[in-house]
Amino acid sequence: MLKIGGYTFASRLFLGTGKYADARTQKEAVQASGTEVLTFAVRRMNLFDESQPDPFESMDLSGFRLLPNTAGAKTAEEAVRIAHIAAAADMCDMIKVEVIGCDKTLLPDPVETIKASETLLGEGYTVLAYTSDDVVLARRLQDLGVHAVMPGAAPIGTGLGIINPYNLSHIVEQADVPVIVDAGIGSPKDAAQAMELGADGILLNTAVSGAGNPVKMAEAMNYALEAGKLGYEAGRIEKKYYAQASSPTEGLSRL
Amino acid sequence: MLKIGGYTFASRLFLGTGKYADARTQKEAVQASGTEVLTFAVRRMNLFDESQPDPFESMDLSGFRLLPNTAGAKTAEEAVRIAHIAAAADMCDMIKVEVIGCDKTLLPDPVETIKASETLLGEGYTVLAYTSDDVVLARRLQDLGVHAVMPGAAPIGTGLGIINPYNLSHIVEQADVPVIVDAGIGSPKDAAQAMELGADGILLNTAVSGAGNPVKMAEAMNYALEAGKLGYEAGRIEKKYYAQASSPTEGLSRL
Amino acid sequence: MLKIGGYTFASRLFLGTGKYADARTQKEAVQASGTEVLTFAVRRMNLFDESQPDPFESMDLSGFRLLPNTAGAKTAEEAVRIAHIAAAADMCDMIKVEVIGCDKTLLPDPVETIKASETLLGEGYTVLAYTSDDVVLARRLQDLGVHAVMPGAAPIGTGLGIINPYNLSHIVEQADVPVIVDAGIGSPKDAAQAMELGADGILLNTAVSGAGNPVKMAEAMNYALEAGKLGYEAGRIEKKYYAQASSPTEGLSRL
Amino acid sequence: MLKIGGYTFASRLFLGTGKYADARTQKEAVQASGTEVLTFAVRRMNLFDESQPDPFESMDLSGFRLLPNTAGAKTAEEAVRIAHIAAAADMCDMIKVEVIGCDKTLLPDPVETIKASETLLGEGYTVLAYTSDDVVLARRLQDLGVHAVMPGAAPIGTGLGIINPYNLSHIVEQADVPVIVDAGIGSPKDAAQAMELGADGILLNTAVSGAGNPVKMAEAMNYALEAGKLGYEAGRIEKKYYAQASSPTEGLSRL
Repeated sequence: MLKIGGYTFASRLFLGTGKYADARTQKEAVQASGTEVLTFAVRRMNLFDESQPDPFESMDLSGFRLLPNTAGAKTAEEAVRIAHIAAAADMCDMIKVEVIGCDKTLLPDPVETIKASETLLGEGYTVLAYTSDDVVLARRLQDLGVHAVMPGAAPIGTGLGIINPYNLSHIVEQADVPVIVDAGIGSPKDAAQAMELGADGILLNTAVSGAGNPVKMAEAMNYALEAGKLGYEAGRIEKKYYAQASSPTEGLSRL
Repeated sequence: MLKIGGYTFASRLFLGTGKYADARTQKEAVQASGTEVLTFAVRRMNLFDESQPDPFESMDLSGFRLLPNTAGAKTAEEAVRIAHIAAAADMCDMIKVEVIGCDKTLLPDPVETIKASETLLGEGYTVLAYTSDDVVLARRLQDLGVHAVMPGAAPIGTGLGIINPYNLSHIVEQADVPVIVDAGIGSPKDAAQAMELGADGILLNTAVSGAGNPVKMAEAMNYALEAGKLGYEAGRIEKKYYAQASSPTEGLSRL
Repeated sequence: MLKIGGYTFASRLFLGTGKYADARTQKEAVQASGTEVLTFAVRRMNLFDESQPDPFESMDLSGFRLLPNTAGAKTAEEAVRIAHIAAAADMCDMIKVEVIGCDKTLLPDPVETIKASETLLGEGYTVLAYTSDDVVLARRLQDLGVHAVMPGAAPIGTGLGIINPYNLSHIVEQADVPVIVDAGIGSPKDAAQAMELGADGILLNTAVSGAGNPVKMAEAMNYALEAGKLGYEAGRIEKKYYAQASSPTEGLSRL
Repeated sequence: MLKIGGYTFASRLFLGTGKYADARTQKEAVQASGTEVLTFAVRRMNLFDESQPDPFESMDLSGFRLLPNTAGAKTAEEAVRIAHIAAAADMCDMIKVEVIGCDKTLLPDPVETIKASETLLGEGYTVLAYTSDDVVLARRLQDLGVHAVMPGAAPIGTGLGIINPYNLSHIVEQADVPVIVDAGIGSPKDAAQAMELGADGILLNTAVSGAGNPVKMAEAMNYALEAGKLGYEAGRIEKKYYAQASSPTEGLSRL
């Protein structure tokens, strides 16, 4: 079971709710993924702007935990304000702090992320911090008290997979709180790899919503997390340079 | 469903039977993997050498297809002789032609592999040919009439995963018969990747038998194949250089 | 020409002076490398601890610029103090700010690195900041006014090469000051790759001092930087999925 | 010095002569590369088809060895015929056997390559055999007596670099004749890597002729081969998982 703050989850997949072709596809993908946590951009909700669609209109939200994110924030101040809005609307079981520092890569700003996390932790929020894969930064966030660190595998929406498995591995090795790999996952093998490296869960969106068949891809991701998690627990073989016969045939009687 | 010659399989995982710690672990791993095809080295069997253990002594083989391999052969002639022995013992639903051309890498000899495949096809065998990931060689084997081509991901037992996804992808693109990735798989993510590249199945042994917990790893591989297969069918997103927001927030009312 | 603050260099290789077998090897490696900048850990010098060897005792330092680093510092305060010592000893043409935040990876602490850089810039130092390959952090340091950013290719002394070419590429794309790749270079191809990605220079130490033949490796690195720099300027071909004949033979008379 | 059959070369770069924008660029690129061996497709020459341009019209060929290739051949028979034409025209110091087995990847046909090499060796040619990176096939060609094996790094013209360094490394380890990496080199770092893996030389064409500035890229490649060769001889450091300080600062007096 995955524990984040006061919550416990059987599924280790967090699913974003953006960019589905239609509400029905979104709903079926959510079901196929087995997720218990829905994540969404507060600024995309029609909380304050009724011209925006309600991404949850056709969803029965009971049975799900909501993880709003502060996407669109470029400063700690903006992120905190967005969190307040989500909480006021009662849509904030947990909050994902996301403060973007670069328009081209959508990579997070380390300084503002620290500030926003500190403030929201002080106010009692359950904070999950989206961060680069900087090893020391991840530990600094943990030291602040965040309830989970969310290092990116690659920039948001690129589908490049885990560019730096080395850093992810060190983040996991040093983590006392759950590590949820967030952003950059492109296909099931990437999700499996993250779990094999010891991640506690994965957040993804585009890899599912942008797939040819989002529902089938959601199911694939569900299996991939299971595969990776079991593989991590089972303990993989070491890599070798020279080949090793599966069934050594030395010393056998000649045929 | 996977069809090879006259056989049809729901599971796309072929499991080797070598190097398990004990018969019980082997049996449970086979069950957990969901495999319908057991593969083994004929020269490792006690068909003619009773001092050898019987790897199947505690197994109920009904419900499985047997895929003996010609491991230990260094020439076409030896491979053919090994196939005849397996057939005579009634342990040969299909035959995996494996003619090793290098002691250090256990990589196959292309010329002898072609010869052995040609002979056994002429004798009516259902032939699966273990080959390097040479794109043209795979097609040459297909042109001979083999029932499946089995390109290696990496040398046997190394666990290095799919070293050359490019070649595998081209082999799949040009294949009219099933492509079963054989050798080199180290962990579930490798199995998922092979399936995402369009492989029809995977044969593995050491990755399971050599894992810390072989039974759990067998289960992981089962999920990984499912994940990769579904991912391939679903159609993954394209990789991008610049980031793409999951929930674009341009043009939203300022908070 | 490479310009950093008020200095100009024809060579783009900065060479560390640690861990050579003997002074003569060090001296010859420095010559073979063509470097104009020698870097060293202030805390390793015998400025205040005469029991330490003087790494420069057999070197004629005229013709070199000295780049002391603050290795050993875990806080901004310590880094600043080390810089002051180097300056007081008149061994500080420039200063490399290095504040380590992790004993296992020796990766830098982003928060303390920013603080130390800010202080030393305020005091008029020419500051080169060692940083992780975090894209936003590199720009933040640049915005502070550092004279060069020094992203690591991989952790110090690992020789893993450029683990994340993606981040390095984005750092270069957004940089207004020179980008000197620092740490993790293992072999000439890594140095060439860094320069091909648009880096302005490279700092390395272990790859040379730890090589079988440090003098020959220093020469190799000198060539590698030249190769990579010219390759970057020349503009490489794009990568393609399908092959393209060097000398197309379609439409030729049949032989 | 590189020795192939009866020839000896100071430069380890073989340069193709196809696809340059104009004769002058070609000539200058050849000079900048330092090559002593020019390679060309016989079927591209105007030996028998005067409508074809003469790629050497502005070149002084004295001082160069000519390596015609059999590009365009799909069978051993065609390759042999092309070699005969080149020899008859006195343009054949050595012959590169190239028998393509796949239109999309331009990868070589192993069976026809073996046949053509055998025939031409029997006729006394100095044979360099273009092959895939199949480890056993490379040794089979060597056993036939070819004067050099030329494994591809990646398909011709793709610029993908060394996709499978593992195979190349094993080919080198088992080789008694020179290994010339042929095809797929995209940039100087690829050339350096091939040499660091122990290759004896490199043949390239598109990476230079297709570069933004072919002359500058030719010069870059020249440096890259030197860097990689020296790096191989010097002996690189081993890769490590944990960081290692360049200048350890443990046990130093506190500052």
